[in-house]
Amino acid sequence: MGDARRYFALPSPFAMKRGGALEQASLAYETWGELSPARDNALLIFTGLSPSAHAASNAEDPSPGWWEDMLGPGKYIDTNRWYVICVNTLGSCKGSTGAASTNPASGEPYRLDFPDLTLEDAANAAKALIDGLGIERLACLLGNSMGGMTALAYLAQHPGSVRAHISISTAPQAQPFAIAIRSLQREAIRLDPQWNNGRYSDESYPEAGMSIARKLGVITYRSAMEWVGRFARIRLDSDQREEDPFGAEFQVESYLAGHARRFVRNFDPNSYLYLSRASDWFDVGEYGQGGVAAALARTALEQALVIGVETDILFPLSQQQEIADGLRGGGAQVEFVALDSPQGHDAFLVDIPRFGAAIAHFLARL
Amino acid sequence: MGDARRYFALPSPFAMKRGGALEQASLAYETWGELSPARDNALLIFTGLSPSAHAASNAEDPSPGWWEDMLGPGKYIDTNRWYVICVNTLGSCKGSTGAASTNPASGEPYRLDFPDLTLEDAANAAKALIDGLGIERLACLLGNSMGGMTALAYLAQHPGSVRAHISISTAPQAQPFAIAIRSLQREAIRLDPQWNNGRYSDESYPEAGMSIARKLGVITYRSAMEWVGRFARIRLDSDQREEDPFGAEFQVESYLAGHARRFVRNFDPNSYLYLSRASDWFDVGEYGQGGVAAALARTALEQALVIGVETDILFPLSQQQEIADGLRGGGAQVEFVALDSPQGHDAFLVDIPRFGAAIAHFLARL
Repeated sequence: MGDARRYFALPSPFAMKRGGALEQASLAYETWGELSPARDNALLIFTGLSPSAHAASNAEDPSPGWWEDMLGPGKYIDTNRWYVICVNTLGSCKGSTGAASTNPASGEPYRLDFPDLTLEDAANAAKALIDGLGIERLACLLGNSMGGMTALAYLAQHPGSVRAHISISTAPQAQPFAIAIRSLQREAIRLDPQWNNGRYSDESYPEAGMSIARKLGVITYRSAMEWVGRFARIRLDSDQREEDPFGAEFQVESYLAGHARRFVRNFDPNSYLYLSRASDWFDVGEYGQGGVAAALARTALEQALVIGVETDILFPLSQQQEIADGLRGGGAQVEFVALDSPQGHDAFLVDIPRFGAAIAHFLARL
Repeated sequence: MGDARRYFALPSPFAMKRGGALEQASLAYETWGELSPARDNALLIFTGLSPSAHAASNAEDPSPGWWEDMLGPGKYIDTNRWYVICVNTLGSCKGSTGAASTNPASGEPYRLDFPDLTLEDAANAAKALIDGLGIERLACLLGNSMGGMTALAYLAQHPGSVRAHISISTAPQAQPFAIAIRSLQREAIRLDPQWNNGRYSDESYPEAGMSIARKLGVITYRSAMEWVGRFARIRLDSDQREEDPFGAEFQVESYLAGHARRFVRNFDPNSYLYLSRASDWFDVGEYGQGGVAAALARTALEQALVIGVETDILFPLSQQQEIADGLRGGGAQVEFVALDSPQGHDAFLVDIPRFGAAIAHFLARL
């Protein structure tokens, strides 16, 4: 298997919103399709907290990506037409510079010496990449979940730099329920003695804290309704049960354990903390003088598609409506789609037929 | 301040549903009002997971109880008319025998040697108390949250022993979302090294695990909608912020921390594990041959009031409807009340005017 990942060297120093700067930092990204001679077919994707830039298979890396069925030649986001770029968020651990990267000043990993990270920084890093690729204006900017907030940070800081926007299951500002969930996820990691103020190693690693954080994530990413149909009260077979007192006994517990197992060692705990906190800090209302509505009205978009899911408890439909209203207030032609997918916040990853149809329909009009 | 708490010695041995038995066990309870000569005005209350039997102040203990505004002379549950009994659930740590009690066989605390606990056991212990008080038939049985499940366990095991029932924000069986939340709360405690397989002490106590468990509880007991209005994105004053990296910064985080602080040392961790697992195990559908509906139809009630809250994510309104339908199927005259209280699952503790009105209206008809 080849590696489709490319690295863009950010301007050095790269100044951060809350102070400090990164030296010799870089952004990992992948691309699909061809940039048109007029450079007017670029579609940039910002991801949720944990995915890499590998949204779909491509010639260099045929392994399936996290949005494999959405993206590719002839698919909903048709790479025969669009030049698609997906970035690994600044501060993540999937190739871009983050807390697990080497600090050139010390030769050691940054760990907690990484500067305060905001989604505005992540947006600005991607803007530098887009500039570097010689793209003056994005044809479309797409973001889902945390990536949707990063996209709003991009639009708020660089009005006029994007023609069309697709906003999926995200928030114009973090609400207290989401802050509470994320704060508790961070606390679970921080309270794990093996986190050790960020100085863990492969041998002494905060598995327990990361496991709790991930399970809580999965609980809030799905929906109670989906689980009634999927797990009901089905017990594990006796040979699958844990010996521990109070160990797993129901299928839903085993499902959560599987998610945690696949995540715990595949995401850097400090990077998780930085990205999680950046989500709490995000408030597009900081731009302009009139809160969220005024900030969204400044984005100078031509068209927007805003998609939300009724069963999403983490990024509720009311927040998607607020984004749609705000963008419309700026003169954009906005399509608002409320899907009744049962899968909650994660529906954009799994209910591809519904999301794909809405996205393809929107892109066909551009 | 006096102590209103009384202790009822359970029959010894007291056999448990899943095996084992308790020796010399007892149940703590409090009462308000006077039992009528015909012994036909008794109203029994089962509590949620954490409250004690001190539902309201009384002559012996004038300190406010957990349902102070609901219960008393002239209040919604009028103790001039009703003889009210509130029990501390078997397995809890507020006076009734539980994992923190001394095991007479060893002279040491039971800890994890306490037998498997079910809500059926808790119901049967209360039934023994009611028998012991010489009450042949309860005028009314009221339960909220976990106590609502305990009440259904009472009705399912002792059909005909209750005339009227008030069911509040509970479940006929644990659903996978609630199981997932409770499983994660238990995991947070079990992963705390100071839990030490149940052998903690005051000096080495699983504070971190209990704190995470309580915060996750509070998050699911309230509603996102309430918190938008209550906390929005209000920051803590700089002198209230934690020095730790990633420490609390928003008011909602400080609110959760306050709840955790008040709980962590006031509830025994092992008792928490036992009661939490008992809730997961509960399924009234085990009684009778036709699942939940058939089991509820066997309860032989005359009247029932079923109250739920639209913003409750832990015990959703659909489950209250299921209880109402099931009891109606058994011939009871059932009133179903869906309240739009913004406070989520905890509304029965704080939205006293709405809950009180519904309860008083129902009781007036009996």
